[in-house]
Amino acid sequence: MKKLINAPEAVLADALAGVAAAHSDLRVDFANRIIYRATPKADGKVALISGGGSGHEPLHGGFVGTGMLDAACAGEVFTSPTPDQMQEATKVVDRGAGVLHIVKNYTGDVMNFEMAGELAAAESGVEVATIVTNDDVAVQDSTWTAGRRGVGVTVLLEKIVGAAAEEGRDLKAVLALAEKVNGSGRSMGMALTSCTVPAAGKPTFDLPDDMMEIGVGIHGEPGRHRVPLAGAHEIAAQLVEPILADLDFTSGPSIVMLNGMGGSPLIELYLMYGEVAKLLEKAGVKVARTLVGNYITSLDMAGCSVTVLKADDEILKLWDAPVVTGGLRWGA
Amino acid sequence: MKKLINAPEAVLADALAGVAAAHSDLRVDFANRIIYRATPKADGKVALISGGGSGHEPLHGGFVGTGMLDAACAGEVFTSPTPDQMQEATKVVDRGAGVLHIVKNYTGDVMNFEMAGELAAAESGVEVATIVTNDDVAVQDSTWTAGRRGVGVTVLLEKIVGAAAEEGRDLKAVLALAEKVNGSGRSMGMALTSCTVPAAGKPTFDLPDDMMEIGVGIHGEPGRHRVPLAGAHEIAAQLVEPILADLDFTSGPSIVMLNGMGGSPLIELYLMYGEVAKLLEKAGVKVARTLVGNYITSLDMAGCSVTVLKADDEILKLWDAPVVTGGLRWGA
Repeated sequence: MKKLINAPEAVLADALAGVAAAHSDLRVDFANRIIYRATPKADGKVALISGGGSGHEPLHGGFVGTGMLDAACAGEVFTSPTPDQMQEATKVVDRGAGVLHIVKNYTGDVMNFEMAGELAAAESGVEVATIVTNDDVAVQDSTWTAGRRGVGVTVLLEKIVGAAAEEGRDLKAVLALAEKVNGSGRSMGMALTSCTVPAAGKPTFDLPDDMMEIGVGIHGEPGRHRVPLAGAHEIAAQLVEPILADLDFTSGPSIVMLNGMGGSPLIELYLMYGEVAKLLEKAGVKVARTLVGNYITSLDMAGCSVTVLKADDEILKLWDAPVVTGGLRWGA
Repeated sequence: MKKLINAPEAVLADALAGVAAAHSDLRVDFANRIIYRATPKADGKVALISGGGSGHEPLHGGFVGTGMLDAACAGEVFTSPTPDQMQEATKVVDRGAGVLHIVKNYTGDVMNFEMAGELAAAESGVEVATIVTNDDVAVQDSTWTAGRRGVGVTVLLEKIVGAAAEEGRDLKAVLALAEKVNGSGRSMGMALTSCTVPAAGKPTFDLPDDMMEIGVGIHGEPGRHRVPLAGAHEIAAQLVEPILADLDFTSGPSIVMLNGMGGSPLIELYLMYGEVAKLLEKAGVKVARTLVGNYITSLDMAGCSVTVLKADDEILKLWDAPVVTGGLRWGA
């Protein structure tokens, strides 16, 4: 295993130290493994927290900042944070208007956030609402999930709903928007290679040199099928077709993300986006906004995913609103 | 070779198609392989172009936009663009105040930019000035270079000098600032793995599982020495010490970039930044601004580089000025 680390058991603590050193507008609670804003948002505004296993950076810690999340809870690599962490984050960010928990649909995350929400409500009187993202069209159930997995839409949702919370919408409105965004987006991913979890020290799965995994999950969990390695055009078709078959995206504008899994260089991600854009145009999907890069990753896995989100004027306006985080930054 | 491509010979054209599709504020001249701004800057302002072999993305095409470059010329992977491309880019971006060529110190790039500058001056009467970056402390000469190689400082220089050109400084002042920035920055990189050039189809160099290359170049060219694989703290020391030995950074604030080579995930880059920050603090270097991520890459190489730039009030103000590009974006 060749990694830029000190020791497998120190990866998370050491990476959090780097985040704290790099970003003066963030604070890190090392005991609770929470990244939060140095300057909290104004009283009376809804706060947003998310979290999950580490190894998907910049998700979620890289999305803490003005216009997006108020805090993120970091679990060990590919391991859910604990209810204690989430409860503490909920208390820290609450400005009296309630807290939205943004949870990717994985069994551990869902269970722990549910417990944290109940504890925060019972012990601190914080009003908590929860959105569980489940946008991955690849598989209905998985080794990690009952129902569809939460993947790329989570990134777009944190941006869009974060802007709405910054505007001062109340918790009910923020939750309704989150449900609308989650319901309007679909994703599908693929892997050329496995990732390697530091604590395991070897690739999570074997993938022969002439094969790729279509529909792979962000922990390297199995997808729809393993197929012979193909060119970018064919890969794009195998990602875009299941997305368009699942939801009609032709009725209005869309936001499209071509996401890298962590080990694929940017030149390949742009190349893939070119292929995806051709397919979307042919299918009558009008792309209004684009994001190309590494946003929800799987350690050093080579591969990519496509996310398409149906937008409207409200969503585009919230998308364009200022955001200042480590992973997304514009307009301020 | 597992890559998200259609064919090795189509990588550059296909990636440029993706850039054009993804960024409505950019234009791509496919015949000349130039990325330029859709809306040129105002008449009377100095324009900046850069370019080089592809495979280092986001450098340079990802740095075209308001506050940074006016155009970038893309060569084939790890191959200099031609003088024709550079001459055409120079003509396209000139707003009557001259054009600065930002050239990384590699023999082919330097020779071709020199010829392009002469042609543009002779045939179109464009005033051209040239800055050759040479910040890599690893080796004095290399397989690709007479003198030191141009690496990470190029990114910071394009940002800082781009802001100065946007302010309306004249060509002489812009060149003087570029020389100041280049002279104030130092870099050093390392590789855990080789990159694979698509046209070659196999790794550029062999690096055993228990070894790493310290001082590696951004094309995988040899560095200072090949040493046993070590932990992040030791790697950071091997990068930071030669930088600090080469220039005194203790007299004022610095801008520090922890750059990924393309194949290392962000969690490892933050972890490395944490180690670098500790060493810099111990050495009395005051870090005023930070950049952590993939900015000047070497395809899918796993590894990282450190760049430290001595700053002053002028440089920090220009650093903080608005920038709107695919690879760097803030303040607007």
